[in-house]
Amino acid sequence: MQKKWCLLSVLVLFGLGACNQEQPVVAVERHYQGDWEYDIGYAGVTKVGQMLYVSGVTAGGASYDEAFKTVYDRVFEILAKFGANGDHIVKEVAYTTDMEAHKKGIEARKAYFSDNKYPAATWVQVERLFDPELLLEVEVIAILPE
Amino acid sequence: MQKKWCLLSVLVLFGLGACNQEQPVVAVERHYQGDWEYDIGYAGVTKVGQMLYVSGVTAGGASYDEAFKTVYDRVFEILAKFGANGDHIVKEVAYTTDMEAHKKGIEARKAYFSDNKYPAATWVQVERLFDPELLLEVEVIAILPE
Amino acid sequence: MQKKWCLLSVLVLFGLGACNQEQPVVAVERHYQGDWEYDIGYAGVTKVGQMLYVSGVTAGGASYDEAFKTVYDRVFEILAKFGANGDHIVKEVAYTTDMEAHKKGIEARKAYFSDNKYPAATWVQVERLFDPELLLEVEVIAILPE
Repeated sequence: MQKKWCLLSVLVLFGLGACNQEQPVVAVERHYQGDWEYDIGYAGVTKVGQMLYVSGVTAGGASYDEAFKTVYDRVFEILAKFGANGDHIVKEVAYTTDMEAHKKGIEARKAYFSDNKYPAATWVQVERLFDPELLLEVEVIAILPE
Repeated sequence: MQKKWCLLSVLVLFGLGACNQEQPVVAVERHYQGDWEYDIGYAGVTKVGQMLYVSGVTAGGASYDEAFKTVYDRVFEILAKFGANGDHIVKEVAYTTDMEAHKKGIEARKAYFSDNKYPAATWVQVERLFDPELLLEVEVIAILPE
Repeated sequence: MQKKWCLLSVLVLFGLGACNQEQPVVAVERHYQGDWEYDIGYAGVTKVGQMLYVSGVTAGGASYDEAFKTVYDRVFEILAKFGANGDHIVKEVAYTTDMEAHKKGIEARKAYFSDNKYPAATWVQVERLFDPELLLEVEVIAILPE
């Protein structure tokens, strides 16, 4: 009987110990997408706990349509590396240099998402992006599937 | 005695089990504010755990003052649906098309908050918003009361 | 024996109780950096759990270089108040009025970070900031060391 009591005490204390570690301290994980990111001084993706912060993805090109496709393809490629897709995007900010051209891409953009599962979003037209020839920059916050 | 011991073991194991579910996996909840959001491809509000991400709320109108009031009224209406108010706003970004006009609304905006409980905020003047007649767009991140 | 059983029950129930408080409700903490923040209606920093939201820090000055240094010095001073540094920045948004001038600061900015530990970042050029003479505004999200 004494033995059983001992074993039980150990279990109880272990249980209490596990409980005390309630809020684990989370640190920033950095996921670089290429060497140019070190040169400029940013990480393409940072992760804190389940949350991903994807740096603004930019593109130029012969046409706005081409830039649009390049940017969204790239955003979704980055998410896929983490097992995430459109379902996991919490928030998008699109910085465009031509809102009318951007709005022509609405249907194309919707095709990246399934079952009407869209993120919160803000779209604004700015004066210019990192390089003068860039047409669109999109950043997202996503939450990992697990 | 054997019975009591059994009961106790069950309690202990149940306790340990509860502890192991420390970090519940959170998914994105979407709260649409109208059909136009499906058409454009965004959700007016997304929720992850306790955090709300409110998409940029826009307005135009006969005057900047009118647009200002429409936007902030709407932001606070949306928060109220979740039992939240100015106390729960963590961060605001205001994208204005006329910073001088926006600054004239400072006192009007302060009236939406109580006891000097203001959010972190960034205000910038951009070239244009979703539609050419829109004057102001405000997005917020808030944390639910519980 | 009866006594030991009692004590053990208390421990078990206490353990279960501790476990049930799994997800503590987090509220917004506000950290004002000066009286002008109350006048305008924002908090220089808000904190939710481990996360810090730093409002856009702005500067003008005789040259872009000067504004650049003022802004980043100030951002890192604010973080230092919370025991944080470049390692803890999750995301940066820089709103510049002159992207070419901003890019000349790339090496200077990298010196604020150590061991290639950079945040996710978005840099855009906007039309103007809070005051017409301001040249740069930088906001960050950081996570506290513990």
